Amino acid sequence: MSRFFSERFNRLEPYVPGEQPKDMQYVKLNTNESPFPPAPEALARISEIAPSLQLYPQPDCTELCGKLAALNGVEPENVIVSNGSDETLYFAFLAWCGEGRPAVFPDITYGFYPVFADMSCVPYREIPLRDDLTIDVSDYTGGAASGAGAVFIANPNAPTGIALEPSRIEEIAKSDPDRIVVVDEAYVDFGAESCVPLTKKYDNVFVVQTFSKSRSMAGARLGFGIGSRDLIADLMAIKYSTNPYNINRMTMAAGLGALASEDYTRTNCATIARNREYTAEALRGMGFAVTDSKANFVFAKSPDIGGEELYLKLKEQGVLIRHFGKERIKDWNRITIGTREQMDILLERTARILEEKI
Amino acid sequence: MSRFFSERFNRLEPYVPGEQPKDMQYVKLNTNESPFPPAPEALARISEIAPSLQLYPQPDCTELCGKLAALNGVEPENVIVSNGSDETLYFAFLAWCGEGRPAVFPDITYGFYPVFADMSCVPYREIPLRDDLTIDVSDYTGGAASGAGAVFIANPNAPTGIALEPSRIEEIAKSDPDRIVVVDEAYVDFGAESCVPLTKKYDNVFVVQTFSKSRSMAGARLGFGIGSRDLIADLMAIKYSTNPYNINRMTMAAGLGALASEDYTRTNCATIARNREYTAEALRGMGFAVTDSKANFVFAKSPDIGGEELYLKLKEQGVLIRHFGKERIKDWNRITIGTREQMDILLERTARILEEKI
Repeated sequence: MSRFFSERFNRLEPYVPGEQPKDMQYVKLNTNESPFPPAPEALARISEIAPSLQLYPQPDCTELCGKLAALNGVEPENVIVSNGSDETLYFAFLAWCGEGRPAVFPDITYGFYPVFADMSCVPYREIPLRDDLTIDVSDYTGGAASGAGAVFIANPNAPTGIALEPSRIEEIAKSDPDRIVVVDEAYVDFGAESCVPLTKKYDNVFVVQTFSKSRSMAGARLGFGIGSRDLIADLMAIKYSTNPYNINRMTMAAGLGALASEDYTRTNCATIARNREYTAEALRGMGFAVTDSKANFVFAKSPDIGGEELYLKLKEQGVLIRHFGKERIKDWNRITIGTREQMDILLERTARILEEKI
Repeated sequence: MSRFFSERFNRLEPYVPGEQPKDMQYVKLNTNESPFPPAPEALARISEIAPSLQLYPQPDCTELCGKLAALNGVEPENVIVSNGSDETLYFAFLAWCGEGRPAVFPDITYGFYPVFADMSCVPYREIPLRDDLTIDVSDYTGGAASGAGAVFIANPNAPTGIALEPSRIEEIAKSDPDRIVVVDEAYVDFGAESCVPLTKKYDNVFVVQTFSKSRSMAGARLGFGIGSRDLIADLMAIKYSTNPYNINRMTMAAGLGALASEDYTRTNCATIARNREYTAEALRGMGFAVTDSKANFVFAKSPDIGGEELYLKLKEQGVLIRHFGKERIKDWNRITIGTREQMDILLERTARILEEKI
């Protein structure tokens, strides 16, 4: 940092994205990308728009918000789109938390939440998951989360993949109508149930989703949020005060193409869900504990090898998975679900590593 | 706004981008877009990258920063790229200003600066331009700008188009080595001189540029900043704490394509500079006062018709220009320089409006 850097951010510890090594070609199962390319219609729309890139994008993203609204059974005024869902999440910390109105989230969840909190100068409380890595809903309906500006629940949670039923999120929302519940549904399309219907019933429920995983568009950066008209107005005020043209024309076009290809998305999600169950079963067969993931990854722990060791040995053998240094989950690894062929390579190399170990 | 919205942002008045009406096809001279399409090489690179959109972009943008560094005679560690230059400017307010370290900028300049300040919870001081709409450098070397965290100078300034020599910016930088000078060079490629060389000599000079105008990529959202390694580290910390994947794969590819087409960019800029002088001269011939613009727009005031009236009458006739409501410049209009044909339409319709008026 320079000698000029604002004291406000003294404590800031930036987020560390999953590694993108350039030394060799890996079977890349570390950043929850889709193994499938974007929908052909998304590619067609990109080619169509590119020659007019000299023009600014529409800042209000009318058509895209309209299509997302129709797909989700809400009105366009209930939708905001953003440069990846991270941007919407950051805006949510800015908009609904502050001094005396902390953010609250589980101790094991998307690692960006504490960073967003520090970046927004917002205090936060982390509530430990149960020993089995599930969320105890009563922690969020009772005292531990009281006085919060917003509760952030990744659902399915990351990196566990474990999902709550919407009725459980509803309990949290009902328990304190003056506190927002932000439901981060980055992984919802792979088998969990969305809380979007709750946004129509409760003005304190806000849902965030992304095109990165289920729609194979991590490289295009497109996320969105759904909530009451007033909540969207809050976030729009922040968008128009930071970056009104936050969605570029190509991403907007690709998003529209993806939304015109919902069959393609559903088929891919179903394939990934099948591959997930196949992988989880195989890992369990090798002695791993595997959480009940509804996401496009599994979270697994072997009694025979440490999380970091397995990660390093697989990397040596050309397979990248994600290991988190955090004490409580250091024995675990998060493995993105790819194609059946990719999972077979992972399983075969994991079996070999375990054999050598035992 | 909702009842949940943070009190911090009570005063926030979001930026209002130039209008993008959908009612009809206009000769669009209101948002400083290029009349030329992006370089063919940019389009080729987009087509090449699109089929791998399922993968995240490289968060460190190594190749793009490397090419920008080479072009600007600096090292890659002196470069940050962002989702439009607005994002870098917002980061600069966050990083280098704060309570007790206000932002300082002219009263007439890019209208987003006060919004960025409010959004970053940063106090600010506006220093009036001289009567002739030029910057009085002594205002920034003396008391009025003392104690500031950063001074923001758009150079050429917006919406006047008037540029300062780098030696004048150097005086400001030298006058207080503990205060950053952010030089916003969005329009520099159309005839002004860049302050990038100053960033190598002074650790308190930071330059911001964009691909939006000279490289015909407003719709792709790509900006960049150049400064000391430590200043870049400050902004990178903020990037990795808000949106590490802020540049999508398509924009990154398009940026590389544009940088491989510098001849194309130079030719377009020269054409626009010629059309600017042609337009300014013609407007002066009709009695307009026209500032000495080095940008891709002119700023003009007629003794015979008010700024808003001219704007409205031209809009009726299918030509969009930009009028700002601000009291001090309400008699003026900002007119983007397009093709010669577009400028002839503007001039012909303006002449007709004036004839009817007089």
